[in-house]
Amino acid sequence: MSTNNRQILFTIEGGAAVTALAPPGETLLETARKAGVDIDAPCSGNGTCGKCRVRLLEGTVEGEVPRHISPEEYTDGWRLACSIKPTSDLKVGVPASAGAFKSRIKVTDLSEGRERVAFDALGKDLDELGYRGDSGIETVALTLTPPALDDAMADRERLLAQYTETRGAEAELGIFALRKLPQTLRESNFSIICVVRKGESRDVILDVLPASAGVEPVLPGLAIDIGTTTVAMVLTNLRDGKLLAGGSGGNGQIRFGADVISRIIASTKKGGLERLRNAVMEDTILPLIAEICGKVGIEPTAIYRAVMAGNTTMAHLFTGVYADFLRLEPYVPAFFHKEGFRSIDLGLSLNPDAEVLLAPNIGSYVGGDITAGVLSSGIYKKETFSLFVDLGTNGELVLGNQDLLMSCACSAGPAFEGGDISCGMRATDGAIEACSIDADTMEPTVSIIGGAGQKAAGLCGSGLIDTIGELFRCQIINAKGKIIRDGKRISRDEYGAASYVLAEGVALNETDIDSFIRAKGAIFSAIRTMMAIMDFSIDGIEEVFVAGGIGSGINVEKAIRIGMFPKIPLEKYHYIGNTSLTGAYAMVNSAGAAAKVSEIAQSMTYLELSSHPSYMDEFVAACFLPHTDEALFA
Amino acid sequence: MSTNNRQILFTIEGGAAVTALAPPGETLLETARKAGVDIDAPCSGNGTCGKCRVRLLEGTVEGEVPRHISPEEYTDGWRLACSIKPTSDLKVGVPASAGAFKSRIKVTDLSEGRERVAFDALGKDLDELGYRGDSGIETVALTLTPPALDDAMADRERLLAQYTETRGAEAELGIFALRKLPQTLRESNFSIICVVRKGESRDVILDVLPASAGVEPVLPGLAIDIGTTTVAMVLTNLRDGKLLAGGSGGNGQIRFGADVISRIIASTKKGGLERLRNAVMEDTILPLIAEICGKVGIEPTAIYRAVMAGNTTMAHLFTGVYADFLRLEPYVPAFFHKEGFRSIDLGLSLNPDAEVLLAPNIGSYVGGDITAGVLSSGIYKKETFSLFVDLGTNGELVLGNQDLLMSCACSAGPAFEGGDISCGMRATDGAIEACSIDADTMEPTVSIIGGAGQKAAGLCGSGLIDTIGELFRCQIINAKGKIIRDGKRISRDEYGAASYVLAEGVALNETDIDSFIRAKGAIFSAIRTMMAIMDFSIDGIEEVFVAGGIGSGINVEKAIRIGMFPKIPLEKYHYIGNTSLTGAYAMVNSAGAAAKVSEIAQSMTYLELSSHPSYMDEFVAACFLPHTDEALFA
Repeated sequence: MSTNNRQILFTIEGGAAVTALAPPGETLLETARKAGVDIDAPCSGNGTCGKCRVRLLEGTVEGEVPRHISPEEYTDGWRLACSIKPTSDLKVGVPASAGAFKSRIKVTDLSEGRERVAFDALGKDLDELGYRGDSGIETVALTLTPPALDDAMADRERLLAQYTETRGAEAELGIFALRKLPQTLRESNFSIICVVRKGESRDVILDVLPASAGVEPVLPGLAIDIGTTTVAMVLTNLRDGKLLAGGSGGNGQIRFGADVISRIIASTKKGGLERLRNAVMEDTILPLIAEICGKVGIEPTAIYRAVMAGNTTMAHLFTGVYADFLRLEPYVPAFFHKEGFRSIDLGLSLNPDAEVLLAPNIGSYVGGDITAGVLSSGIYKKETFSLFVDLGTNGELVLGNQDLLMSCACSAGPAFEGGDISCGMRATDGAIEACSIDADTMEPTVSIIGGAGQKAAGLCGSGLIDTIGELFRCQIINAKGKIIRDGKRISRDEYGAASYVLAEGVALNETDIDSFIRAKGAIFSAIRTMMAIMDFSIDGIEEVFVAGGIGSGINVEKAIRIGMFPKIPLEKYHYIGNTSLTGAYAMVNSAGAAAKVSEIAQSMTYLELSSHPSYMDEFVAACFLPHTDEALFA
Repeated sequence: MSTNNRQILFTIEGGAAVTALAPPGETLLETARKAGVDIDAPCSGNGTCGKCRVRLLEGTVEGEVPRHISPEEYTDGWRLACSIKPTSDLKVGVPASAGAFKSRIKVTDLSEGRERVAFDALGKDLDELGYRGDSGIETVALTLTPPALDDAMADRERLLAQYTETRGAEAELGIFALRKLPQTLRESNFSIICVVRKGESRDVILDVLPASAGVEPVLPGLAIDIGTTTVAMVLTNLRDGKLLAGGSGGNGQIRFGADVISRIIASTKKGGLERLRNAVMEDTILPLIAEICGKVGIEPTAIYRAVMAGNTTMAHLFTGVYADFLRLEPYVPAFFHKEGFRSIDLGLSLNPDAEVLLAPNIGSYVGGDITAGVLSSGIYKKETFSLFVDLGTNGELVLGNQDLLMSCACSAGPAFEGGDISCGMRATDGAIEACSIDADTMEPTVSIIGGAGQKAAGLCGSGLIDTIGELFRCQIINAKGKIIRDGKRISRDEYGAASYVLAEGVALNETDIDSFIRAKGAIFSAIRTMMAIMDFSIDGIEEVFVAGGIGSGINVEKAIRIGMFPKIPLEKYHYIGNTSLTGAYAMVNSAGAAAKVSEIAQSMTYLELSSHPSYMDEFVAACFLPHTDEALFA
């Protein structure tokens, strides 16, 4: 077989060229993925999304002509990478936009009194969360007697004896501290500061620093939210919980599909688990850590504790644990919780002995992002009942109070993070994050992330909710999401399919609207099902907390108008940002917070919606604007 | 400066070409080392050994004409790499022999009843050492209830609950076991064998294997002796202590110099510590582990426990710990002992959570090879006094009994392992390991490793002692080591310097003999100094144990004749092979043996010979054949 391998030269617009070998039977998309060529394919190669467009420059292929490519484009060489297989060596042009999903890393300096900005993004600060300063990372200043010919005790043994004498506790050196010890002792005239992780039976010395009179070293800790679409992190000083820097970037796994199921399937192929792990680790997390550390002038090895929160699939792929059984009945994760990961176990660039906690999972589809999020929301300590909704690539819901917490997950799809929508994008520069429409002229007024002069590039989650809410209010679309008016803003293709044009190059078509209606229907029907099971009326919900990195926050009025959220007074809704990151941030600063999240995970029940008989009926009923039962929103 | 970089093309005889950039002022040897081109330089670039010969094919250099290169050779392009610096781009030929020190890895299958061979090499078996079967690595068979939709407990939590129920102990999964767990459970129908390291507060599950009825899996453990010149290892089954395979290879660090001081100095240069660590790890240890595992058909990740014994410098460079202070007064190591190294900390290829013990050091020049060696020798448990002599690249001595152990190190130089001797080599195929000479004809009769038909390639340690002993007995050399007879076997160069020719291409010159006399003088004077301090006469020594991988064993009669060992009855001498490896082998199979070595290390005192007033006089007196005080050997 290997003699039939084809050589493929990918030329990436405005950038590099990559050569790869394609074995017989492999699609061009598969070859590109193995070679690390970024080609967006949210549907993971099923030929449905039409996003993996490439241009054939030389050579021949086999495969059908997909509906996404017009005859003119076809003549011009355009193909979908997922639907062709080479029959000769190829030269292929890859448009720059194919890799645009992998958005640039953005890093913000959060020091020097700018904490409010970040806390706003995080939603809550540590005081509000009720935790501070029990990270378990401390400093211990020690001055040793220098060695001499008649006192040739080794450095380690000298240090540990002094440590035990000073602190009354046993200790051991981590590998990083041991490697640095001889030079640090002599540079500092044997007067050092040990960075220590307190332990039950024994402390671990993670680092040794020269003592500088009166200066207390910063003790960096890292909180990471690994979203299916976006990875966000903040660096904090474990000494006082202050933020030092923050950053985010696209999850490099996205070239293996927008949703977790595609990722899991890709991970089960030969070498796939390592490829998926590398895609998020090498392409996203490690560069982000390097950027964020560079911003504040520290080495990654100066990070002494980290917490990662993500959904169950992300937790498995990040740790390199076989994930296939998450998607197969009976949907069992390899782990809910895992104690004692160290940075070096996971291939992170932090201090090799730094403990890395993962927020615990409670099921295959309710993971650490939700358990950490429930901590941030505070619903677990209220007497009254609250609803917590996390709008990520999937939608997850938690309903409960201090005595009872029930969770479920619905396949909302990636609409809220820009996936599955032809003009969808993440909430970054160029995204339309808010929209209102004039009912008479159908002219839109939009707000674009990036400020004045920024050209609209697409729609993020909050903009999408706004736009569809407005289209419905203005009767431009009907209850089924079909465009029922004509005008300057309405464009139709040769088959008569209509789009609403928001800006040059940004148009919402009926397929997009349909995707969105299914996403919002999934959420509303999940809320209804959960409430029915708990025998609970809408009036019993005292507060609704909406989380997720969907843009400026959510326009609840419009979300209710289209039947995504239940009709209860607007003042009961609170948009609380990225609660997964906020929870991880609390956990890294506080062992108490981490223990609380474990408690939450232990006590929370998990409802498998798909096995509940009434869910499907609820879902079908919710796939209208606002709902087949209009009385619910009257 | 960087604009003046020269490009150097090294063409290695019969092999690859390597291109490197040489910054101004760098010798060709330094450039070769950075580029990973193996060029033997036992004197570490001091221009004294003359072994780093290369041939200039194109380009110009600056540097003096060394005495080791004849005018004819010079005209022919031959140079010493250590004494030239490029003044243009160069093409350089590297003879195959330049890398010959890096001998091929040799691996032996020790299973299937061939244990005696290996045990002979090890010197002792576990029964004799009095330890067996307490490695702390065990297997635990468990059968779990498979999950179902109404019992969706995660795999890890399911396993740990069953473990605790079965064993009454808490456990945690190592990263390797966690990664394998989901597939192993389902392949084995939820009936598995856990490989466990017993812990005080908690057991660690290192691996999970499918249960096969009646089959107890092999539990591989690894013992490594990291010698300055040679690395040797054995794979053992921790279940019963049986040997599975053995192997050895040249320590890849040797291109940075034959002695530990040269290695330490090389390690203090920019990036040097990592280079030295890689040289032994990537070039020697990891390939050896791969070979040895391949031999018995296991993956390196199936190795669950390892012990490494080596001198203090080797222990530092192997673990990547800064080593410069070992050679600077007051000669203090970074560590004597270190608990809890795991394979992944050190970059080994074993199970990432496998514990890696290092035999403890007791000073900068008496390391884990000696503490492990004392265990093997058994001298620590005898009532009578014994002398333990380890002939490695350095010579180390221990004198004592069950109540008292004193150790010291002498800079014997690498003569016993083939270094510093023009025709010296390690005890591998082609080495002359024994020699007798006819006093009349001066004709030698030699025994060559590798058996019949093997051509002599050089002299190993035991062959060297034999040859010099015979040359002295036959009065071919005098007490100062000068050749005083002429004949067919004596060759003289143009300056009149004489050599004794053992075989074609194998000749011992007066410089070699002088190096050897200093080596044997260092050992004898160390013995004398230690005995004087302990106020001890030669009659008080009941036994002498000689260790080291010097060939067939040592011909004690000849060693006494030349004044290397004291004149006591031959039957009191025992050659006991590689005691460092034997000790590591006992330690990996037995936590009790490991604890005993720690006790030995705690109780043993260290004598710094260089600070003892009489040592220098003793050394000078011992640099004759047999000694200036002939009465000692009468």
